[in-house]
Amino acid sequence: MVEKYVYFFGGGKAEGSAKMKDLLGGKGANLAEMTNIGIPVPPGFTITTKVCDIYNKNNKRYPKEITNQIYLNLRKLEKLIGAKFGNSENPLLLSVRSGAAVSMPGMMDTVLNIGLNDEVVQGLIKKTNNPRFVLDSYRRFIQMFGNVVKGIEHSKFEDIMNFVKRNKNVKLDTELTEEDLKNIVQRYKDLYKQEIGRDFPTEPIQQLWEAIDAVFGSWNNERAKKYRKLNDIKGLLGTAVNVQAMVFGNTGNRSATGVAFTRNPSTGENKFYGEFLLNAQGEDVVAGIRTPQEISKESSQEWAKRINISEQERKEKYPSLEEIMPDVYHQLKNIRSILEQHYKDTQDIEFTIQDGTLYILQTRTGKRTAEASLRIAVSMVQEGLIDKETAIMRIQPNQLDHLLHPRFDIKVKNEMINKGNLLAKGLPASPGAAVGKVVFFADDAVEWKERNEDVILVRLETSPEDIGGMDAAKGILTVRGGMTSHAAVVARGMGKCCIAGCGELNIDYDNRQLRVGDKIIKEGDYISLDGSTGEVVAGKVKTIAPKLSGNFAILMQWADDIRKLGVKTNADTPKDAKVAREFGAEGIGLCRTEHMFFQGDRIDYVRAMILADDEQERIKPLQELKKMQIQDFKAILEAMEGLPVTIRLLDPPLHEFLPQPNDEKEISKIAKIFGKNPDDVKNKITQLHEVNPMLGHRGCRLGITFPDIYEMQVQAIIEAACELKKKGIDARPEIMIPLIGNVKEYIPLDKRAREISNNIIKKYGVELHYLVGTMIEIPRACLVADKIAEYAEFFSFGTNDLTQMGCGFSRDDAGKFLKEYVDRGIYEKDPFQVLDQEGIGQLVEMGVKRGRKANEHLEIGICGEHGGEPTSVEFCHKVGLDYVSCSPYRVPIARLASAQAVIKEK
Amino acid sequence: MVEKYVYFFGGGKAEGSAKMKDLLGGKGANLAEMTNIGIPVPPGFTITTKVCDIYNKNNKRYPKEITNQIYLNLRKLEKLIGAKFGNSENPLLLSVRSGAAVSMPGMMDTVLNIGLNDEVVQGLIKKTNNPRFVLDSYRRFIQMFGNVVKGIEHSKFEDIMNFVKRNKNVKLDTELTEEDLKNIVQRYKDLYKQEIGRDFPTEPIQQLWEAIDAVFGSWNNERAKKYRKLNDIKGLLGTAVNVQAMVFGNTGNRSATGVAFTRNPSTGENKFYGEFLLNAQGEDVVAGIRTPQEISKESSQEWAKRINISEQERKEKYPSLEEIMPDVYHQLKNIRSILEQHYKDTQDIEFTIQDGTLYILQTRTGKRTAEASLRIAVSMVQEGLIDKETAIMRIQPNQLDHLLHPRFDIKVKNEMINKGNLLAKGLPASPGAAVGKVVFFADDAVEWKERNEDVILVRLETSPEDIGGMDAAKGILTVRGGMTSHAAVVARGMGKCCIAGCGELNIDYDNRQLRVGDKIIKEGDYISLDGSTGEVVAGKVKTIAPKLSGNFAILMQWADDIRKLGVKTNADTPKDAKVAREFGAEGIGLCRTEHMFFQGDRIDYVRAMILADDEQERIKPLQELKKMQIQDFKAILEAMEGLPVTIRLLDPPLHEFLPQPNDEKEISKIAKIFGKNPDDVKNKITQLHEVNPMLGHRGCRLGITFPDIYEMQVQAIIEAACELKKKGIDARPEIMIPLIGNVKEYIPLDKRAREISNNIIKKYGVELHYLVGTMIEIPRACLVADKIAEYAEFFSFGTNDLTQMGCGFSRDDAGKFLKEYVDRGIYEKDPFQVLDQEGIGQLVEMGVKRGRKANEHLEIGICGEHGGEPTSVEFCHKVGLDYVSCSPYRVPIARLASAQAVIKEK
Repeated sequence: MVEKYVYFFGGGKAEGSAKMKDLLGGKGANLAEMTNIGIPVPPGFTITTKVCDIYNKNNKRYPKEITNQIYLNLRKLEKLIGAKFGNSENPLLLSVRSGAAVSMPGMMDTVLNIGLNDEVVQGLIKKTNNPRFVLDSYRRFIQMFGNVVKGIEHSKFEDIMNFVKRNKNVKLDTELTEEDLKNIVQRYKDLYKQEIGRDFPTEPIQQLWEAIDAVFGSWNNERAKKYRKLNDIKGLLGTAVNVQAMVFGNTGNRSATGVAFTRNPSTGENKFYGEFLLNAQGEDVVAGIRTPQEISKESSQEWAKRINISEQERKEKYPSLEEIMPDVYHQLKNIRSILEQHYKDTQDIEFTIQDGTLYILQTRTGKRTAEASLRIAVSMVQEGLIDKETAIMRIQPNQLDHLLHPRFDIKVKNEMINKGNLLAKGLPASPGAAVGKVVFFADDAVEWKERNEDVILVRLETSPEDIGGMDAAKGILTVRGGMTSHAAVVARGMGKCCIAGCGELNIDYDNRQLRVGDKIIKEGDYISLDGSTGEVVAGKVKTIAPKLSGNFAILMQWADDIRKLGVKTNADTPKDAKVAREFGAEGIGLCRTEHMFFQGDRIDYVRAMILADDEQERIKPLQELKKMQIQDFKAILEAMEGLPVTIRLLDPPLHEFLPQPNDEKEISKIAKIFGKNPDDVKNKITQLHEVNPMLGHRGCRLGITFPDIYEMQVQAIIEAACELKKKGIDARPEIMIPLIGNVKEYIPLDKRAREISNNIIKKYGVELHYLVGTMIEIPRACLVADKIAEYAEFFSFGTNDLTQMGCGFSRDDAGKFLKEYVDRGIYEKDPFQVLDQEGIGQLVEMGVKRGRKANEHLEIGICGEHGGEPTSVEFCHKVGLDYVSCSPYRVPIARLASAQAVIKEK
Repeated sequence: MVEKYVYFFGGGKAEGSAKMKDLLGGKGANLAEMTNIGIPVPPGFTITTKVCDIYNKNNKRYPKEITNQIYLNLRKLEKLIGAKFGNSENPLLLSVRSGAAVSMPGMMDTVLNIGLNDEVVQGLIKKTNNPRFVLDSYRRFIQMFGNVVKGIEHSKFEDIMNFVKRNKNVKLDTELTEEDLKNIVQRYKDLYKQEIGRDFPTEPIQQLWEAIDAVFGSWNNERAKKYRKLNDIKGLLGTAVNVQAMVFGNTGNRSATGVAFTRNPSTGENKFYGEFLLNAQGEDVVAGIRTPQEISKESSQEWAKRINISEQERKEKYPSLEEIMPDVYHQLKNIRSILEQHYKDTQDIEFTIQDGTLYILQTRTGKRTAEASLRIAVSMVQEGLIDKETAIMRIQPNQLDHLLHPRFDIKVKNEMINKGNLLAKGLPASPGAAVGKVVFFADDAVEWKERNEDVILVRLETSPEDIGGMDAAKGILTVRGGMTSHAAVVARGMGKCCIAGCGELNIDYDNRQLRVGDKIIKEGDYISLDGSTGEVVAGKVKTIAPKLSGNFAILMQWADDIRKLGVKTNADTPKDAKVAREFGAEGIGLCRTEHMFFQGDRIDYVRAMILADDEQERIKPLQELKKMQIQDFKAILEAMEGLPVTIRLLDPPLHEFLPQPNDEKEISKIAKIFGKNPDDVKNKITQLHEVNPMLGHRGCRLGITFPDIYEMQVQAIIEAACELKKKGIDARPEIMIPLIGNVKEYIPLDKRAREISNNIIKKYGVELHYLVGTMIEIPRACLVADKIAEYAEFFSFGTNDLTQMGCGFSRDDAGKFLKEYVDRGIYEKDPFQVLDQEGIGQLVEMGVKRGRKANEHLEIGICGEHGGEPTSVEFCHKVGLDYVSCSPYRVPIARLASAQAVIKEK
């Protein structure tokens, strides 16, 4: 049997369905689905993603069956429409659009109005009696074909358009006359010939094939590849191609093109939300060329208020669709309900109105902000549309990050505004707060970011080429474009603050500055963007911790009810501990003691301890450090009252606390403080130097060779806990011995810790429950986990070090090749960010199985940074860990990811 | 039932046997065995090693049943002898000797003549009518008891003895009169009281208990612990105590004490060999106090000839036992046969002759040199005493090392001797050649060795306290003592060159020099020892490669017939390859290419390659390097004609080829050579610096990121092989890609290597069989070995790196704690020397199982340094490797060890 490469839709029936996204792409699958459920979709056919794969893998050659299948479907389409492709008297025009299984907005190519040439234009003018529309379509076609298919720069067409507009002294495309358009068409054709060296192709079937080639080829263009990389889209065959009968939003003022969201994509509010342009074609909305109008009257009025336009002016210049074409508006509203009920999720819809008739060109799951995600998920459960588990699965755990990060301190912001620092107000296109230095070019944003500068990318409008710079920027500010412009859509997807359509700004790219009235902001000056209000403020506005909405609490509660993994935090200070506790941390899984050693003048005592010639000399600094550590531990145990706090004994190699051997100045200073000879200090430092410190004299190896350091720390932990207990505070310390690779290292350290602890507890006469356990971070420890578990009460996987040793990658050095490794797909993800399940995961699983077999009461967690990464959390759930521990801001992510892990398992 | 702690032997019957070594110690078990087979052994009883264990673990308290068991056996002994312990008229005297399951010569304590006090002495004089003998025994008893039981320094007794001798102007103990001995006894008693604060104990039963306590306690004295550590003796309960009726070698000139070996322990010659002292007690022989006489006439004459004594003088002063007491000699010779037939191995016998009656006090397996080991094993097979497998098991593989190491170039040595550099000639106590600087104290030997100095330890005589220094020295030279002196026995055990009894030397400890005639050798001057001839030569004598005996070849052939593991070598040069091939290597398992990069001016091209700004610039140096590598590979493939040669592609990080970033001079030089700016060179070097180079940008990671380097190397390997093939030389290259941790790293490198290879082979038009495979040295590689094995044709375990990463130990840094780890038993052995089977072994086993499961034709070897370590070789056999690869000198060790692994498995 011949493989089916082309799927027809139209006339209320389609060969495909929403389930066939992999084969038909998201757009094609949904066009089929909508056709089947009676939504007015212009008919057409979809060429499968498989063809794209074959095309790109076979040196741009198609499977031979394809030509016949396309022609048969084209005939079917002509019959259904009652017009003929290429026929000048009754011509059928076509659009060709890309559409992969995963939405990649603006990343691939679209060509509209295919089938036009001078003869067809004449015929169509005769038929429609609307020469302006036909010529407008013609100039659009030449421009799109020239740009998309032939790679002629967009700006060269724009220059012609602007030249003609300036000559005529008009601002908008819609103000151009028939003659102007003829003029433009001719100039476009000339440009085409000049650039390509041949006349613009007049044969419609050739136009169609070239457009199809271009879309399939666009799968592998640079910006599409970059987008997939940034958005981590992998494993797709390619894009499908949708060939569809054209409908026209540019036939006049009873025509329009627009985009709508079934709910507000920024806040998640259950209000129909959309924008449209009268007498325009689809790309005009997304490209932000004209300021679009709101579809509902209510939104339109809100919009006018926000930008200080009188109701009078609004009604005249920017009326809503609800006001201009109430029937169409209600038909659209009805479709909104049908689609949400059908898809059970918020939809992002593209529509065109041709002479008062509504057509839906696309529907897809609407991208939304984290805040909107939560609100939509929670309210859809409350509306009975979805169940709680579905709601939980709807939120991408990483999205929560955006909610948890600081916002502006309103008071400070208002003060700054009152002092006259408000530069302008634009559209609140993507919420959040961003402070940074102004840059005007995407490349600069990338470069400055690499120097660790926070930057705000300011552009007239953004285009797909700017993706890298947008990713690098803290926030994005554009002069043109609406809420659905490229900048807005992409920024929301990235969870990045964005203000769009801020027309008051005048950008001077040449001089790298922007002007608002008499205020000038130069490249490198600080500005602050409030993505929730659209305010652009000169200078740095102070940020404060986020306040979480009720929806967040509700969804987290649902997640907590489902998840099985505990979620703890990695925190070294009482402040971090409190933040984490507010985010729902159920204890501290990793409290690193060495960070405490760097505070204030403590480092002097640490150095005295290290430089001591013998135990005798080491006593005094150790006692001083002990006093300080008792205070540290008391504060942190108190902040976590009633919850377990796992404290790791000293881990890094000692030389990390000392200056470089060539830092004569610092060495002299130290020598003076401790009454030592500088040469001796230098020698000691040199002696402590290591070739591979990662694999050196650190962790429990210090505990074995310098037992007094660990003894001091254990004393400090248990004394701190006992003192709290005396005050009635429920302290729950857990002592964690790092870097164990051999049970014979563990046994004496464990024994000594318990002896010391029990003696102190006896002395204080309190009841204190404590645990002693170990980090599993050396590959060997996983292999002998059964032996270690006979003695340890808990394991905590240190997957950072386990990855370093298991993969043989130094975290400090791997940058030199790891990026290339990920680019080449040797590792799918950076194994320091996402747990390498194939390799390191086996070690973890082995450690869990062997540990549990020897000690069924063993408590097992993970405290590497993977503990806050969703796919790694899912893995931890699968292998049966008791808890994950992560940085405070990742706690909600871990809570959600672990609930999702339970649901996925079903 | 009461546990049996005491085992009796005597009257032709014993409760123990040779099989009970663990419980009765080697000495006790053999005393029992000899009693049972009719050898004349003085009766007595053995207190078990279990008692030692209980005693030392229970704060020096005995199990309560012990007293009764000892008294009952003492009664039995009294009855058998017909004398009573402590009875002054008919006294029984006892010896108390230690004896663990493993022989530790001189390490633990012995007390003789127990039961003497003033009254018993009087009674015994009356009974024997031999006051001199009785008083000699008494003074010996006080001295031994004082020293061994009470810790009074030996030298304090010696000082008294020497004072009396000087007063009387005599040289030998035997020249002292009855009065002198009375005088000495009194002075010894005074010394005892002065040192201990109490009178010497007169109660025999108290003497006995204190002696037993002392022997059990001596198990844990410092020198015994040190000896066990040096000789790697572990897992024993403790020592047994042998309480035995005294027999006396010091009753007069019809009495003697001696030591005999059933075959020559130095050469292995099947000749009865031994030494004795007339009128002496046992310790006199071992301590080297008097020069002992030979037991056989033939040896005696050879000895006289060697040291230039006339037959006349010999007969008068140093007659053999054969001449003085022919009956006893023949009885002893007969016992020699009985014991060898019974034990099927060479025995080391202690005997005493009391008034013409022979007693055997001990027999044990004789320690021997490597050369003797081989000769004895081979000839015992030829004599039909043992089978080949037993012979193979008799040789400790590491012993072979001694045979394979250089000896003196006889011509050079003779020239030096002719020039008058021969200092003296002593006894050839342990063969081999040693060159080093003279030191006179054991501590100095240890200290100098730590500074990497080769030293020769020169002593009047050695004592157990010198063990550390003997271990540190390249050779040992003593003035006193015979072939069975402490120095000789210990040196042979260590496989270390030793010349003993070199009486011509005058040592001046105070001025740290030695004098021979008018020649003076100061501390730090070089001397050379020929342990096979006894020659001591001033200066450094040139050494040459060893010549192996026929016995070696025979035994190796037997081993080869049995072993299943292949044995290859790690060699980077044709010279090493040839040496290894002579030692039986069956190919090269690891040829490191990077060593070649350092030769001559090649480093300049390597640096040019590294410093190149782009691929274009890299071409020229790569081509130059390729030419050189082709020559390298041709030479090595030719040296190994017909055998496989596994060549590893570049492994170390690139910065290893560059100077330090602060080496301005070298940087300027490089910059000049390559026409670069010195700052750029410096930057490049700084940029290549790594925090943990072990885990950095090296191995296949270079192959992935700089593909042209590996491509050059593959071309060089295959072109070299093809050129040889054209000449009819059977080259068998195997390309090894290092540091693979992920199959996705391996696939493209493997594919590229094969493409390049096949193209070259086609071009040359030869038939060349080559393999492509990988090193397994990253823990992750073991976990995903199944995946890698789908593509690789061979695995070679790089257990050095696998240990570094698996245990988390940097080989360069671990010195800081690993020694302490081994001392504490955290790791039983240094895991870089002996494969850590518990941990890293699991990774190897996993790699083998998974690899073989995916690819049954996979060839698997090991090329880490463990490949030449016997216990690790045994492990490799057990887990089913195809071959081990080790350094050339370790090849015979690996051959033997792998044969032993097969035998042990049965």
